[in-house]
Amino acid sequence: MQVSFTTISIIILLRMFDDLSSILRNQCHLEPERTLLVAVSGGPDSLCLLHALWSLGYPIIVAHFDHSLRPESEAEAEAVRGYARQMSLACVVGKEDVQAVARTQGLSLEEAARTARYRFLLRQAYLHGAQAVAAGHTADDQVETVLMHLLRGAGLAGLGGMEYRSLPNAWSQDIPLVRPLLGVWRAEILDYLDEHGLQANLDASNLDTRFYRNRLRLEALPYLEKLNPGARQRLWRMADIARRDDHALESLAEAAWQACLLESGVGYLALDVAGLQSHPPALQRRLARRAIACLRPGLRDIDYDAIQRMLDFLDAPERHGPIDLIAGLRLERAGGRLWLATWEADLPGGAWPQVKSEQELLLQVPGEVGLPNDWRLSAEALPANPALYEQVRQNTDSYQAWLDLDRLALPLSVRARRPGERMCPLGMQGHSLKLSDLMINLGLPRRARASWPLVVGGVAASGIAAGGEIAWLPGYRLAHPFRLTPETRHILHLRLAKAVYA
Amino acid sequence: MQVSFTTISIIILLRMFDDLSSILRNQCHLEPERTLLVAVSGGPDSLCLLHALWSLGYPIIVAHFDHSLRPESEAEAEAVRGYARQMSLACVVGKEDVQAVARTQGLSLEEAARTARYRFLLRQAYLHGAQAVAAGHTADDQVETVLMHLLRGAGLAGLGGMEYRSLPNAWSQDIPLVRPLLGVWRAEILDYLDEHGLQANLDASNLDTRFYRNRLRLEALPYLEKLNPGARQRLWRMADIARRDDHALESLAEAAWQACLLESGVGYLALDVAGLQSHPPALQRRLARRAIACLRPGLRDIDYDAIQRMLDFLDAPERHGPIDLIAGLRLERAGGRLWLATWEADLPGGAWPQVKSEQELLLQVPGEVGLPNDWRLSAEALPANPALYEQVRQNTDSYQAWLDLDRLALPLSVRARRPGERMCPLGMQGHSLKLSDLMINLGLPRRARASWPLVVGGVAASGIAAGGEIAWLPGYRLAHPFRLTPETRHILHLRLAKAVYA
Repeated sequence: MQVSFTTISIIILLRMFDDLSSILRNQCHLEPERTLLVAVSGGPDSLCLLHALWSLGYPIIVAHFDHSLRPESEAEAEAVRGYARQMSLACVVGKEDVQAVARTQGLSLEEAARTARYRFLLRQAYLHGAQAVAAGHTADDQVETVLMHLLRGAGLAGLGGMEYRSLPNAWSQDIPLVRPLLGVWRAEILDYLDEHGLQANLDASNLDTRFYRNRLRLEALPYLEKLNPGARQRLWRMADIARRDDHALESLAEAAWQACLLESGVGYLALDVAGLQSHPPALQRRLARRAIACLRPGLRDIDYDAIQRMLDFLDAPERHGPIDLIAGLRLERAGGRLWLATWEADLPGGAWPQVKSEQELLLQVPGEVGLPNDWRLSAEALPANPALYEQVRQNTDSYQAWLDLDRLALPLSVRARRPGERMCPLGMQGHSLKLSDLMINLGLPRRARASWPLVVGGVAASGIAAGGEIAWLPGYRLAHPFRLTPETRHILHLRLAKAVYA
Repeated sequence: MQVSFTTISIIILLRMFDDLSSILRNQCHLEPERTLLVAVSGGPDSLCLLHALWSLGYPIIVAHFDHSLRPESEAEAEAVRGYARQMSLACVVGKEDVQAVARTQGLSLEEAARTARYRFLLRQAYLHGAQAVAAGHTADDQVETVLMHLLRGAGLAGLGGMEYRSLPNAWSQDIPLVRPLLGVWRAEILDYLDEHGLQANLDASNLDTRFYRNRLRLEALPYLEKLNPGARQRLWRMADIARRDDHALESLAEAAWQACLLESGVGYLALDVAGLQSHPPALQRRLARRAIACLRPGLRDIDYDAIQRMLDFLDAPERHGPIDLIAGLRLERAGGRLWLATWEADLPGGAWPQVKSEQELLLQVPGEVGLPNDWRLSAEALPANPALYEQVRQNTDSYQAWLDLDRLALPLSVRARRPGERMCPLGMQGHSLKLSDLMINLGLPRRARASWPLVVGGVAASGIAAGGEIAWLPGYRLAHPFRLTPETRHILHLRLAKAVYA
């Protein structure tokens, strides 16, 4: 290599060399003596990576995967073998008909190609005892990834983009994937290749704007760069900061998780409500996400709304649930514990309140009826007085209700809903809704709706007999006609409680 | 108001009402009984805000600011007075020739308008004892702000966009600005106005794409939305998560700052190096930013690079500095403390090493010379042996150096640099650089360069007399010709130290 040095070019080259060495050591955590498997497509990025690592003296195995997607793919594999030979490096080449895999397994072509490629690379790394697989992702790839996450929805983890070192969990639990060029721009890579007289393969499919990622690279990023010169560089830096911020919050979340998780079993877990509330909302979000991921590890997108519903539920001490959360998980609160469980799981404390279908239990005043799973529903009469009104106003337990006794015909009955039944919930000015719609709207879980206990009475004033109108949907809403008013003289106090949590 | 209710529309209206009430209480922290000053331009957003707050029964003062920018501005002020009259609310109108202010104060028109408007609003809020100023920023405004921050460079704080409640520091230290509609989309606002038969002013300047923000709204966001339907909504959610994450990290940073700040005075502060290092990089960044902001409170953009240089300096225990950081601040390390100071500040420990100009001090071996501010430079001769080489290899103190004694002509001299002087720094394979370029490149602060002490010797082998070649630039680099080699038989050990830090 014959280069004429100027002061500046020496300094720049020294810096690039310093930078890459420091990235390999401090960000990728590579050991210079241990074998590294370098993934080489033969394109500019991977060729630059291979050459730079080789120059630094790393023991390298070159690995190439032929996706059989283009007629020139065999020639490309041959070119990679050629590079390896020139550098006196071992080379492994894998091949699969990715199109066929995509067809038979119902995957997108990109997904199938990615899966086959990484499976091959990590398998080879394992067979050769390599410390890591090195891939040629660049700063441009990083910015594309970040923009994609921004547009498709992401929290801090997504904004951080790719990591210099990460475990490709789907393919390996112990061999990391490292990306030493994550801070190097494609323009610098082309300069590097030019300087070293290296000729890379060009993949025409990178120009095909039918692929979403290519549209981002070829259209969206140039557009944003034109709107605001330097935008790419700023997105990269934002991602770099976001990654560090995310790591800091994740390690806090890990500690908080250990402290808040009280119990877990097949299909359920219990978190400490007071513990959760002692953390800032940012950590609560992360704990909620972990709880869901714990019970539904395969779930790819744990959406913003589900997490928000979980935090809102946590912030509303009067709500016991259960409510439908996401992916067949239910959320309920009991005795200072927040339970997250699958519909099938039997919680240690038993199930939610329910009434056997077709059963109609008479509730006297005063009196009490027993329900399955140790629930009981009690009723008592109280004289109206201002102190009681204050207590009602401050009540935070949705399993208690106070009604105007004189507007109800006794005895009350406790039963499940009937087809087509309606209710006038408090706050709707007497408009009645189909009970089935109301239950959906209030978040009452589907599996619980049919057997949820209702307290039913009659409107004495209008002479409708008992068995008529719904007075209370325990845990959720009182009926408007039976609400307390300034004219109320006798009060009916209803309470649903569970022996085990009392 | 005559509206025909359907089940669904009742539920939606109840929810919007619930949402806004909960936002006003939990996010804006407003008290329903205390006066609120509502900023009303007369456009759709502020008119909707005014009407919604009025419907909820808040005691309101309407405030309008006339920027005198458009011929119709007086008519718009009159329209706002009209709304206030219809709702029986007090109304204050301010007016200023913003164009003239921009001209005389050299501000952009947007900046001048913004400053005049907020000054008026917060002044009025103060005069009327209002608990807060409410502004009509919407979810669309939020997404524009976030995109602007993304393209112009932002950490987590910028990604979070606007807050539901914040202190507009430039204009008031105690009256907050609240933005209750931050989660409401403009389309919903237009529906609301339509439903209530309200007619808003339309500001034609919002369509002028010469304004950057209008280009984002009218071009960039529709482009991104087309590329990825739902992108706006996702950006909004990302911002919402980022704000919470930022708050959590800021409160950690506050605690860490209290623990790490050892000393501060006029133009300087000292942080505990070990304390800083005990925190994750995310917090180190925030502490670095705080340190800079503390000494340069007016600095608007504390850039990524300056923070990164500060962290790199912290991670390199062999570097003592001082180095130029940003905005006339210097960074140095001494005795477990990281000092950040203005160039003018006198640190409690005294200044960096220097030599009086024109002075040339002779350094015998063994021997020692004294420099201003209690610095001293000492020399001793040692026999070459493997244990010593190991010690040299592991040295992390850039104020010590080991040289090949036989390649130096004695006595050495200690002096400042001379015009045009060159040096061959270690690692440059014997290439010589202009000392002035090298000092810049190594980050030696400008004010320190001219009087920085150099150790100068002669190359005995080539017969150049003493006073010739630079052997050591203390704190930074050894000269290549004097490095230790396998052939070295006698070693010269040099050390620069400060009595007060010893």
